Amino acid sequence: MTELHRVPAETLRQQLRSIFVAWGMSEDLIEPTVDVMAETDLRGIDSHGIGMMPLYAELRSQGRITMQPDIKVVRETPVTALIDGGNSLGHGPSTIAMKLAIKKAKAAGLAAVTVRRSRHYGAAGAYALMAAREGLIGLASTNAGSKAIVPTRAKEPVFGTNPIAFAAPAKNNKPFVIDMATSTVAVGKVKLAVYNDKPLPDGWVVDPNGAGVGNAADAFDGFGRLAEGYGVTPLGGLASLSSHKGYGLAGMVEILCSMLPGAPFIGAMDDKSKHHTGHFFLVIDPSAFRDEGEFEGEVDDMINHLRGLAPADPNLPVLVPGDPEDLAYADRMENGVPVPEMLMQAMAGVCRDANVEFLLRG
Amino acid sequence: MTELHRVPAETLRQQLRSIFVAWGMSEDLIEPTVDVMAETDLRGIDSHGIGMMPLYAELRSQGRITMQPDIKVVRETPVTALIDGGNSLGHGPSTIAMKLAIKKAKAAGLAAVTVRRSRHYGAAGAYALMAAREGLIGLASTNAGSKAIVPTRAKEPVFGTNPIAFAAPAKNNKPFVIDMATSTVAVGKVKLAVYNDKPLPDGWVVDPNGAGVGNAADAFDGFGRLAEGYGVTPLGGLASLSSHKGYGLAGMVEILCSMLPGAPFIGAMDDKSKHHTGHFFLVIDPSAFRDEGEFEGEVDDMINHLRGLAPADPNLPVLVPGDPEDLAYADRMENGVPVPEMLMQAMAGVCRDANVEFLLRG
Repeated sequence: MTELHRVPAETLRQQLRSIFVAWGMSEDLIEPTVDVMAETDLRGIDSHGIGMMPLYAELRSQGRITMQPDIKVVRETPVTALIDGGNSLGHGPSTIAMKLAIKKAKAAGLAAVTVRRSRHYGAAGAYALMAAREGLIGLASTNAGSKAIVPTRAKEPVFGTNPIAFAAPAKNNKPFVIDMATSTVAVGKVKLAVYNDKPLPDGWVVDPNGAGVGNAADAFDGFGRLAEGYGVTPLGGLASLSSHKGYGLAGMVEILCSMLPGAPFIGAMDDKSKHHTGHFFLVIDPSAFRDEGEFEGEVDDMINHLRGLAPADPNLPVLVPGDPEDLAYADRMENGVPVPEMLMQAMAGVCRDANVEFLLRG
Repeated sequence: MTELHRVPAETLRQQLRSIFVAWGMSEDLIEPTVDVMAETDLRGIDSHGIGMMPLYAELRSQGRITMQPDIKVVRETPVTALIDGGNSLGHGPSTIAMKLAIKKAKAAGLAAVTVRRSRHYGAAGAYALMAAREGLIGLASTNAGSKAIVPTRAKEPVFGTNPIAFAAPAKNNKPFVIDMATSTVAVGKVKLAVYNDKPLPDGWVVDPNGAGVGNAADAFDGFGRLAEGYGVTPLGGLASLSSHKGYGLAGMVEILCSMLPGAPFIGAMDDKSKHHTGHFFLVIDPSAFRDEGEFEGEVDDMINHLRGLAPADPNLPVLVPGDPEDLAYADRMENGVPVPEMLMQAMAGVCRDANVEFLLRG
């Protein structure tokens, strides 16, 4: 295993803030972006927080993201809006979009806001949770700008990992939260198998002929990306385990995040540098359907029932969706966010290039 | 294989109509119910059309469904409604709910309607398609009143097969449609393995200890139902293939269909006869986000791209979600709906009990 440093959340936030300031990010976008990224790291979703910074630095240096974007609502009704992200990093316009959806849903009971001309927005769950913290049901999705998911029966990757996040508030428990790629596993999990020299389970990765890949190293290009033509399976993994369902869900996300706001479909693009990202946010106010507290109380009952289930293996307790992230959050608030040495070095480089002090080593 | 009779769609419709009349179903609910059931059979979803009639007859004789229900909107805003199904068979109140959501979404851009005190509503896809035929995006879900899905790491079934259906209109192609249980496979597929004496793939069924079941016959009670304590896996099938994602999706459906409208959570009920069914319907008008025709054109482009993908096996072309159902529809409109002999006999019994002419044998 790589050596892990533990970085206090506040240090992580300071580091992110200092880099965004140095990059010239619009003042009002800095805190929302830092909030989403730090929360993502605290919740244990290491692939989507500070671990993305080296890529963001690269996108910025290539001129593919704008630090002072013109983010605007281009179409609006009392319950819908379409936002043009102005080619911004995604966290800013997505926070604006989710907050607008929350405001509209509080007024009308329901709202959907979509975003186009955005970029990577971190972990989808962060936005769904914004709604749940306000006592609302939140749903967040995004298309993704790298071909990764190979449709059932096909040979080549077509969809990004097209995640779905959903959060619902509970009375006493933390919110019920799912935050899942519609692929069987994230590309990052495949990478972990390479690092640890483990064979890949059947149903994770397919080669350019559409055949399963057992040796993780075969699937990588040496730079931590999937090798040309390789892809991950849709949720289900194998045709016999209904991978067509994951394929269908990935297509649903593509429709909500590409066709609905007007962002391009990566599957049909040869030049991924021309891709821009689309997002979909939906908010439902339970009080449009139920009396005060009824919904949250019944979600609580369900969560308590699930947590009380006897496990098949006494060493592996039954989890409620959101539990792993809540456990990570508690641990990391106390002990700091683990940052592997390789990422430390990459972040030192990002700081050097941005001409800001490197704070993460403490 | 069982012998299959082919019944013309019009005969099937007449048979259903005559039984519902004999059962005393409210006049205005008969055609919507016949429409949904016949379409479901035409689209090849045999488990959810006329195949359900023997069960509906049983529910009726037990007094668990009301033939002249008082279906009413009990809460309403311009973009939301909660409907009390009056203990009706689900197709009637669900058609009313989806039509109301369509009307509201056409006026406001977006609408969500939930239903409680309903029963089995057939295939979720039928309702999502109602929206797509009107040029709208439709989503339909329902809880289900039999414990079937065993959460990841647990031993006992907790959720019904909690399906998600989604449909989006395309310019020239038929709509993009998914209609999927959030389990790896439907219970009906396990039954087919019993009939055909085939071993079960690892990841379909678990026993009361949470262990995988290879022999399909072990999982059945001799009456075509899962044996006590047995269950199906959440989509993903195995923990190594991310069955926690299917578990999370099943939980999401439960929240939208049980807690949001106020229907009971089957997982915590000992007496399933007290369960009533809840549904969730969402409709989005693409014209709230895009100019006339843009959305449908881009969905078309995606469908065409998917259909043009080279298959891994030349004998198994890449399908677009909705293709299998569209193929079945074309075949069955021409050649009739296949009805296995066992169902023929059961339907003859239903007709005898209802004192109506048995039409299916032609």
